[in-house]
Amino acid sequence: MNAPESNHQLQAGQRPVPDAFLQKLAARFGAQYSTAQAVREQHGRDEGSIAAPPPAAVVFAESAQDVQDAVRLCAEYSVPVIAYGAGSSLEGHLLAVQGGITLDVSRMNQVLSINTEDLTITVQPGITRKALNEAIKDTGFFFPIDPGADASIGGMASTRASGTNAVRYGTMRENVLALEVVTASGERIRTGNRAKKSAAGYDLTRLLVGSEGTLGIFTEVTLRIYPLPEAVSAAICSFPSIEAAVRTVIQTIQMGVPIARVELIDVNAIRMVNTYSKLSLREEPMLLMEFHGSPTGVKEQAEMVQDIASEFDGNAFEWAERPEDRTRLFTARHNAYFAAVASVPGCRCITTDTCVPISRLADALLDCVNEADASGIPYFLVGHVGDGNFHFGYLIDPDNDAQRQQAEQLNHQLVERAIALGGTCTGEHGIGIHKQGFLAEEAGDGGVAMMRAIKQALDPKNILNPGKIFQLAV
Amino acid sequence: MNAPESNHQLQAGQRPVPDAFLQKLAARFGAQYSTAQAVREQHGRDEGSIAAPPPAAVVFAESAQDVQDAVRLCAEYSVPVIAYGAGSSLEGHLLAVQGGITLDVSRMNQVLSINTEDLTITVQPGITRKALNEAIKDTGFFFPIDPGADASIGGMASTRASGTNAVRYGTMRENVLALEVVTASGERIRTGNRAKKSAAGYDLTRLLVGSEGTLGIFTEVTLRIYPLPEAVSAAICSFPSIEAAVRTVIQTIQMGVPIARVELIDVNAIRMVNTYSKLSLREEPMLLMEFHGSPTGVKEQAEMVQDIASEFDGNAFEWAERPEDRTRLFTARHNAYFAAVASVPGCRCITTDTCVPISRLADALLDCVNEADASGIPYFLVGHVGDGNFHFGYLIDPDNDAQRQQAEQLNHQLVERAIALGGTCTGEHGIGIHKQGFLAEEAGDGGVAMMRAIKQALDPKNILNPGKIFQLAV
Repeated sequence: MNAPESNHQLQAGQRPVPDAFLQKLAARFGAQYSTAQAVREQHGRDEGSIAAPPPAAVVFAESAQDVQDAVRLCAEYSVPVIAYGAGSSLEGHLLAVQGGITLDVSRMNQVLSINTEDLTITVQPGITRKALNEAIKDTGFFFPIDPGADASIGGMASTRASGTNAVRYGTMRENVLALEVVTASGERIRTGNRAKKSAAGYDLTRLLVGSEGTLGIFTEVTLRIYPLPEAVSAAICSFPSIEAAVRTVIQTIQMGVPIARVELIDVNAIRMVNTYSKLSLREEPMLLMEFHGSPTGVKEQAEMVQDIASEFDGNAFEWAERPEDRTRLFTARHNAYFAAVASVPGCRCITTDTCVPISRLADALLDCVNEADASGIPYFLVGHVGDGNFHFGYLIDPDNDAQRQQAEQLNHQLVERAIALGGTCTGEHGIGIHKQGFLAEEAGDGGVAMMRAIKQALDPKNILNPGKIFQLAV
Repeated sequence: MNAPESNHQLQAGQRPVPDAFLQKLAARFGAQYSTAQAVREQHGRDEGSIAAPPPAAVVFAESAQDVQDAVRLCAEYSVPVIAYGAGSSLEGHLLAVQGGITLDVSRMNQVLSINTEDLTITVQPGITRKALNEAIKDTGFFFPIDPGADASIGGMASTRASGTNAVRYGTMRENVLALEVVTASGERIRTGNRAKKSAAGYDLTRLLVGSEGTLGIFTEVTLRIYPLPEAVSAAICSFPSIEAAVRTVIQTIQMGVPIARVELIDVNAIRMVNTYSKLSLREEPMLLMEFHGSPTGVKEQAEMVQDIASEFDGNAFEWAERPEDRTRLFTARHNAYFAAVASVPGCRCITTDTCVPISRLADALLDCVNEADASGIPYFLVGHVGDGNFHFGYLIDPDNDAQRQQAEQLNHQLVERAIALGGTCTGEHGIGIHKQGFLAEEAGDGGVAMMRAIKQALDPKNILNPGKIFQLAV
């Protein structure tokens, strides 16, 4: 156990963390409490590009009671509290911009119940998506939502995450059935139940999913799981241009083909992935696809998409039938971010995350490609294009302010374009700190005012991850 | 134009409707304003069994500006305002329990835009589901959500409605993409956009869907639409018992068969429907099913379900391949409520609406059947059983208080059972007035307190459909 540290340096915008509070926290949590510099620093950052001073202390919660007790102390002293799962968020969600403490829930990582008859599972928030799937792999069921990182389920619910399977299985919005939540006053409540649908009052579950830790801290999450498909086939298809690949996707979606995954990978990303994952993918814009269903269903879907691809001069599909080959391909896709960062030693990656109506995907994407090419900044492009969602990664020199500004400018143009086309500034990463200006533009003053009013009603002391999503008037 | 009526009788719990307010309303709305007794009475009730005094006046909104102006006047004078679409709600949603005015949006019934490339449509709230499908019938797309009544889209969004297709296509929760809403202060805001997914701040769209007119009045609704399936087949299958039918459904869902519709109809309902719709369905518990997909996909699904049904002694499927035969069957199903009411002259129907996890469906249902049989009250049972959702209709003599109490007691037992089994007190009808006690039980004090806090934050004068979902402390 570390002694409480009273000399935590206050920065602009940071709120006081009284010694008496830290002493009570230390007394309550003993070895689950730390003020070690390394622990605080590890918890004071995420995978994004923004920096802030670390939290004053870190508490490792091991139970819902721990979460309640920590939040109650924070409420008593009006100290900010930031829930922390795997630390993989990208928009500054975990940064202690107003000071306070971090509540690490990664030790709350148990599967509490599996109900294969109802296709539901209830877990603690700290379990990661891979650990969850590992825990149920012998049941014949799986949980499809797969952001690039091995994120925690609590974090994924908090940012309304999705990933490569969302085109068929939806996002966390569709797949979180119920929550147990500790509120700003330290009460523990349940939202939702295990029924597949309900019309019982306000949909608190969906309000909390995507609230980025600002309305409550999740202590249990009930999710939908799916029977492993009878047949799964993955294929890659190379195209002469990004446009050809994108037009194939648009037509596939518009025809209602229930494709399970359809990922766009540009030439830059392929080169990076080939190096990083020791693959030899053809260096052309590529779609990486997966089909789920009965054997005949899978065959039918694949034939339809192959026909569409051929119309746009796509090559013949190259198939990955064996599970290990499929895993290798999708692992390479998931590692595109790391492959990119590794490709430019010392770089930082600024990742974009817009999503547009599928009919506007080509418009949105191609102009961004031209702008990125013109900038001279190394970049890559990947996308869950079946949903109209894509990510550019600009690989900047963190010490080069001009380059950072240039990348932010590219992101700015890209987001403006997405919003103008009827889309959103974030498909799956969330607002955090980084996108608050864009949210105001997308949701309008009235929309953000409604969000603020809800926040103020549910967290009147503004202790739950303050300074995220929007600013509150002091 | 009717003159403002100043002698509207105040009842217990009703709030004052000042003459000055009615005069301003009349001046602003002219012929769109009525205090005629018949108009007020028509707007002061729904299809449910609860009665209340009618509203003081009815305004027929023809534009979002009309809605804003009416709400602003209501806000100025703290007068309740109740949005009204088709009048088909079942739990007292439309009753002016605290007085005030009704804002009829049925004239706002236009399709504003259809985007078949993005599978979206934007409509005004007063269009009914049938009118919407009629408007897009030549596009090759359809909107699947079909509560029994030809409800308005605004009303369906307000109660988070669903129906027979929800097992495959989801409910209004999954199918409302975005809203334009007039808030309690008369501001007009947009929530959501046409992107298929978004992680941009609080999910105001899903908070508003199901809020029963208590947080805002919808002026535009953007919905998901679906390509008409290449192949559609409907079949009926009779079973020796309700249990056999239900076990067939449970296994079908657990195996992940993407069945589009699966409706349970009990013997009582079949007799009523046979008489009302001049059919000759076999008088045995029945599943009415529909399969959507490619021709081979439909065949595959149907074979799987037939195999399961046979295990439970279901008969061979009887097929309805022609569209007109399918329509006849599902129209008969949709008319079950009216068939039932017609079967007992002068009766009133008390309809239940629980939903349980699919594994508990047989437990939930069979005990309820036994209790209903024992009661001696005429009743029928239908259900969207693929979702675990079912409805009993108890046909009571409205002048027989003992019988009404007995039916309410049956409903009480049924809801208690559903909640105990991990289900909900309402799958699709909503809370309204009738189910507030059950909501408290289901969501707990903490959950309802969170809903109340949101309501108070977004509607501090409590003018938007007050007295629904929960009571606010005065």
